[in-house]
Amino acid sequence: MNRYFDFNATTPLLPQARDAWLRANEKHWHNPSSLYRDAGIASQMLEAARERLGDLLGVDAGRIVFTSGATEANNMLFSAFAGQPTAISTIEHPSVREAARHWTKMREFDARGDIPDAALVSVMAANNESGELLPWRELAERCREKGIPFHTDATQWIGKLAADFGACDYITGSAHKFGGPKGAGFLVLRDENEQMRLIRGGPQENGRRAGTENFPAVEAMVTALETITPQLASCDDSGRNALESALRAVFPGLRVISAEVPRLWNTSLFVMPRHENLKWLTRLSRRGFSISTGSACSSGKEGSSVVVTALGATPEELRRVVRVSGGWETTKEEWLELASAFAEAGAELDAEANARANQNPMA
Amino acid sequence: MNRYFDFNATTPLLPQARDAWLRANEKHWHNPSSLYRDAGIASQMLEAARERLGDLLGVDAGRIVFTSGATEANNMLFSAFAGQPTAISTIEHPSVREAARHWTKMREFDARGDIPDAALVSVMAANNESGELLPWRELAERCREKGIPFHTDATQWIGKLAADFGACDYITGSAHKFGGPKGAGFLVLRDENEQMRLIRGGPQENGRRAGTENFPAVEAMVTALETITPQLASCDDSGRNALESALRAVFPGLRVISAEVPRLWNTSLFVMPRHENLKWLTRLSRRGFSISTGSACSSGKEGSSVVVTALGATPEELRRVVRVSGGWETTKEEWLELASAFAEAGAELDAEANARANQNPMA
Repeated sequence: MNRYFDFNATTPLLPQARDAWLRANEKHWHNPSSLYRDAGIASQMLEAARERLGDLLGVDAGRIVFTSGATEANNMLFSAFAGQPTAISTIEHPSVREAARHWTKMREFDARGDIPDAALVSVMAANNESGELLPWRELAERCREKGIPFHTDATQWIGKLAADFGACDYITGSAHKFGGPKGAGFLVLRDENEQMRLIRGGPQENGRRAGTENFPAVEAMVTALETITPQLASCDDSGRNALESALRAVFPGLRVISAEVPRLWNTSLFVMPRHENLKWLTRLSRRGFSISTGSACSSGKEGSSVVVTALGATPEELRRVVRVSGGWETTKEEWLELASAFAEAGAELDAEANARANQNPMA
Repeated sequence: MNRYFDFNATTPLLPQARDAWLRANEKHWHNPSSLYRDAGIASQMLEAARERLGDLLGVDAGRIVFTSGATEANNMLFSAFAGQPTAISTIEHPSVREAARHWTKMREFDARGDIPDAALVSVMAANNESGELLPWRELAERCREKGIPFHTDATQWIGKLAADFGACDYITGSAHKFGGPKGAGFLVLRDENEQMRLIRGGPQENGRRAGTENFPAVEAMVTALETITPQLASCDDSGRNALESALRAVFPGLRVISAEVPRLWNTSLFVMPRHENLKWLTRLSRRGFSISTGSACSSGKEGSSVVVTALGATPEELRRVVRVSGGWETTKEEWLELASAFAEAGAELDAEANARANQNPMA
């Protein structure tokens, strides 16, 4: 019984990706930039992995720059637009929002409204909190008509839905969101001749990203996406929907955020009718379930309040927001087990609240 | 018979580091920033790894920021001195030189001469090309007296010599130079409260480096250094010296660079008396030996000519420079096998040169 419901935060490493990493470290650990035979083989395999990823994403391999993750990739992109006006949606991940804020003259806009004039428009493919799917294909088209480069942070989309990103100028992604290793991601550039760099030094990655190429992680990342992609056709939202129905039956006041728009099949962000989200998380954790109060990239500091507010939660609701996100093999039974655990935790929390109220009748 | 002599470019992954990575991915792959029990354990283990690395380096753990490697770490440091005057030695790695050149008002200076006025002085601990050991302890002391922060890129030192870097304000290092995985490194800051960041987004690494923490790679890195450190006492330069003696006997005109100063025990950079270095590399590669014409971070483009020239090679010598760098378990017999392979390759190259000269008497 798998009780992990935080796949949007990170995923366990797929066995195929693990084996690819082990093989790469066993046979092809040489520095791909060195000049002897074994290094040449590692270099060729790195380029083969780039081709394979290009095929998976529907882009030319020459456009792909391997990075340490989507966060680095987003920073790299925005650093290349330093000082220029950029427009990002109101619900971007912190790695887009903070990078855009620091490097560029950033403004936020509603991705379903008019496209502002900007040197770069950036709208995520799927939101990490509610799973909302953004109209990135249409936005890419409209930006093309206006002559504005379009970037999509596809970190939550890739590995959950079919990826054909040919329409986008810039794409970022992260291996550990689709069963690959942590520490690997990529930035797809407009064309194979475009030059930009954030991390400087040696001429690796065609002069775009210095540092010894991490071929084992790249090989594991690409293998993970190759493994996951054929499974996507059989993934649907029936388990997630069953959870939401079951929760609504137990908690009539429950409100699902982004319920009215297309969402990732694996994600549900909802406002519990009572009790703070950390209480729910703790009660669920005791039962072995891993859930979230919002993006792990936000939790611990300001919370994911900016994005969740932009998604439609009221200030009063924020502290009752819970996110659950399943995996490729999460079964309907497991989703319903989660609903039962919420019901148990709710009864517990209600009873304790009632006991406190009776002990402190004046409070 | 191990014929890999390019340990300064990268090292094979130690079995202990591989096992640590596998264990971390099996048990503690959860997002350390998440809030449920398993994530908390991963977070605690990440902090324990930070403590262990702090102990190995002789610094407080709170000063350590985990990065994707030394190149990112060097860029992070210099980006924090944006626009300010910095002084780096003439023989720094490209990841220091290019980062300093881009982010700061950089000047180069002779690390054995006077310390210039600067907001930051950066001198590597050991040079990656010739293995020259720089007087970083003394420089750290002198900089402290002058009130100038001192950085040492210790990438080639750590894992080859005992590391006690308490005297330095800033330290960078890279896992794959000491048997750890690629894609992992660190920057040690002046104190645990110092704030700087290059890669922005979530609040990971105490707000200093955004992006999901790569605990498996960190765990593997620290395990590698813990594994290697006790072996360092038994590492000496006798094998490398035997190679140099044997080569000098066969090639009387051979010139070893940095021979007159203290060097890493594993490294030799020398100028062959005849034939271009790529010819030597190819002949050695055919015999299964991996050697280098200089830093892999430089090869492929301008070569390592800037640094090797600063180390004392004449323009005429540059094309005949060869670097060999052994590992912790490279035996004297293996070093001598390498010398024999050079002798064979030399005879081959001489014979071919003579044949060409005879075929083209007018050329």
